[in-house]
Amino acid sequence: MAVTLKDVAERAGVSTSAVSRTFTEGASVSHKTREKVEKAASELGYSPNVLARSLTTRRTSLIGLIADNFQNPMFLEVFDQFTRSLQRRGLRPLIVNLSEATEPETSVTMLQQYSVDGVIVASSTLPRTFVEAFRTAGIPVVHSVGRPSRAPKVDVIGIDNARCGAMAAETLAARGYRRVGFLAGPQTATSTVDRARGFANELAHHHQIEAETRFCDGYSYAAGYAAMRAEIKAGPREAYFCGDDIISIGALSALRDAGLSVPGDVGLIGFNDMEMARWGVVDLTTIRQPLTEIIEASVARIVSIVADPDQPPEAMTLPCELIERGTLRPLPGDG
Amino acid sequence: MAVTLKDVAERAGVSTSAVSRTFTEGASVSHKTREKVEKAASELGYSPNVLARSLTTRRTSLIGLIADNFQNPMFLEVFDQFTRSLQRRGLRPLIVNLSEATEPETSVTMLQQYSVDGVIVASSTLPRTFVEAFRTAGIPVVHSVGRPSRAPKVDVIGIDNARCGAMAAETLAARGYRRVGFLAGPQTATSTVDRARGFANELAHHHQIEAETRFCDGYSYAAGYAAMRAEIKAGPREAYFCGDDIISIGALSALRDAGLSVPGDVGLIGFNDMEMARWGVVDLTTIRQPLTEIIEASVARIVSIVADPDQPPEAMTLPCELIERGTLRPLPGDG
Repeated sequence: MAVTLKDVAERAGVSTSAVSRTFTEGASVSHKTREKVEKAASELGYSPNVLARSLTTRRTSLIGLIADNFQNPMFLEVFDQFTRSLQRRGLRPLIVNLSEATEPETSVTMLQQYSVDGVIVASSTLPRTFVEAFRTAGIPVVHSVGRPSRAPKVDVIGIDNARCGAMAAETLAARGYRRVGFLAGPQTATSTVDRARGFANELAHHHQIEAETRFCDGYSYAAGYAAMRAEIKAGPREAYFCGDDIISIGALSALRDAGLSVPGDVGLIGFNDMEMARWGVVDLTTIRQPLTEIIEASVARIVSIVADPDQPPEAMTLPCELIERGTLRPLPGDG
Repeated sequence: MAVTLKDVAERAGVSTSAVSRTFTEGASVSHKTREKVEKAASELGYSPNVLARSLTTRRTSLIGLIADNFQNPMFLEVFDQFTRSLQRRGLRPLIVNLSEATEPETSVTMLQQYSVDGVIVASSTLPRTFVEAFRTAGIPVVHSVGRPSRAPKVDVIGIDNARCGAMAAETLAARGYRRVGFLAGPQTATSTVDRARGFANELAHHHQIEAETRFCDGYSYAAGYAAMRAEIKAGPREAYFCGDDIISIGALSALRDAGLSVPGDVGLIGFNDMEMARWGVVDLTTIRQPLTEIIEASVARIVSIVADPDQPPEAMTLPCELIERGTLRPLPGDG
C-alpha cells in the first residue's frame, strides 16, 4: 500500500492540510510543523503526492484529452505529441475515449471528479455544445482541430478547412481533371462540411469542371473503401479529393483491388499528411494539416488558461500546405 | 475554479477527512457531520472528488500505461483497448510516453506521486528490471507483451515468441523458400530475440534452407525500409520473416521502390496483424498477436492485483495464429 498524506498527518500529529502545505512551494507552514511533517514523511517513505497536494493548490497537473476516433491513425500523432508536450511541462495526460457509445456529457462530470486542471477536446465531429459544457462547468478547455470562428465561445485551435478545400480544387484543376469528386467524411464533421464548401466554391470558378460529393460513414479505412467501391460501380470520376488520409487509403485500396491504377486511371488527393501517407506503398499526395503544431499550441494555450482563467476565448488558425507525392497526374508541362 | 474538498470542509466547519469519509461508501461518519458536509457541498456545487476521496480509500482509480514506441501504429490498438477496458470498469488511464529520452526510472517516482492504483507496462524493449521496480516500490504492475517465464517476478501477459518464430519458419519452408532471412527488431527487444531463436531452431530441421538475420534499429517503418535497402544492395533473399508488421511495411515499400514485386520476386511475412496489415495496399501475410486480448487480460489482472496485492505473480501466454494474405507465394499444389 502506498503511504498517503493522511498517514503522514497521523504520524506527525498534524492536520492533512498542514502536510499538504509543507510540500507546497510558497505555502505558509510553521517551522515546527514542517519539521514534524518531514520527519514523519521520511520515516514512512512518503514522497509528496501531487494529488493530495492538490487539496491546497487546487491543481492536479492532470490535463484531459478527449478523442472520439481511435480507429483513425492520425490520432497516433495526436497522442504522441500530447503526451510529450505535457511531460515536458511536468503535466500528466488523462485520456478519454469516446469511440464507444459513451454519452459525451458524462465525461464532463467524470473529468470534474478527477479535478483535471483543463481539457483538450481533439475532434471535429463532437458538437460544439459539448466543448462549451466544460467552460460552463468551470473547466478550462481548448478545442483542437475544431472550427475557428470570429467570436468563439471557447478557445479553438485549428485550420481554415474551407481554404484547404479550395486548395484541393485548385490542385485538381491545375492538373487538367474535368470530372472530379469529393469523398467526404461524415456529414456531422465541421471539418468535412467546411472542406466541401471551399472545394465547391473554388470549382464554381472553373466552369469546365463537373463535381459531385459523396459522404462517407466516418473517417475510416472501411468507409473510404466502401465509398470508392460505390464510385467504381457507378463509373469512377477522373480524380477525387478525399475527406482525409484514412479515407484516401481505403479508396486507393478499392481502386487497386478493382485493377485500376493510381494515378493512371484515377487520381487521389488526401488530407492530413499522417505518417502512413508517406509510406512507399501509399505515397499519397495530400494537404498537410499541422497536427503536431496544433496539439503543441493547444497544450500551451490550456496551460495559459489554467494560470489565468479570465482570458477571453481566442481562435487560432494554423496554415496548411500541399504535399505532392504520387497519386495525381503531373502538372501539364512537368516531366 | 473548481470547488475542492477543502472548501467544503471549511464551510461545514469539519476536517477534510470528515468530508472525504462522507463521500466514501462504507466509511464511518456521524449523522450530524454528514448533514453539515452535504449541506456545504450542495451550497458550493461540490461533486465528490475521486482524488480527494482517495485520501480515505487509498484508491484513485487511475491506472498508468507505459509505452515506449508511439511511432509503431500497433499502439493505436493498445491505446484504444486500454482506454475502453478501463472506462468499462470506471477506471481512468494515465499515459506515460517513454519514446523520448526520458529516464525510465523517473516514471516510478512520477506514478507514485500520482498515486496510481496500478501500472501496465506495454513494451518488449524496456528492461525487466524497470518493470520490477514498480513492484519493489509497492505499485501493482502487469507487464504486457513481455516475456512470460516459469517463475515470474512480476505478472506478465504475452505470447510464446519462440513458438511464433518457429511458425514463421514452418510457413516459409512449406512454401519452398530456400534462401530466407529474418529482418529482426532491435536486439534489446525480448520479443525479437525469442522470435529469432524459434525461427533458427525450426530451420535447423530443414537442412536445405539457408538463413541469416539482420537486426533493425527499431520497430519502425524507417528501420524496415533501411534494412531491406541494404538487403537489396547485397542481393535479396527469396523471402523474409520480418520482426513485426511495421518493419514489414517498410521492407515492402523498399522492394516496390526498387521495382521488385511481392511475392513475385521476394516473399514477406510479418508479425502482429495490426490494422494496417489488412489494408488492401499492404495485404500482408502475418502472424497475429492477440493484442486486444492481451490488453484486456492485463487490465483484468491489474484490477485483481489492486484488490488483492498478496497474490504471487503469474505468467499468462496467449496463442498466436497465421493470417494468410498476399505477400507469400502459395503452398505447392494451391491455386
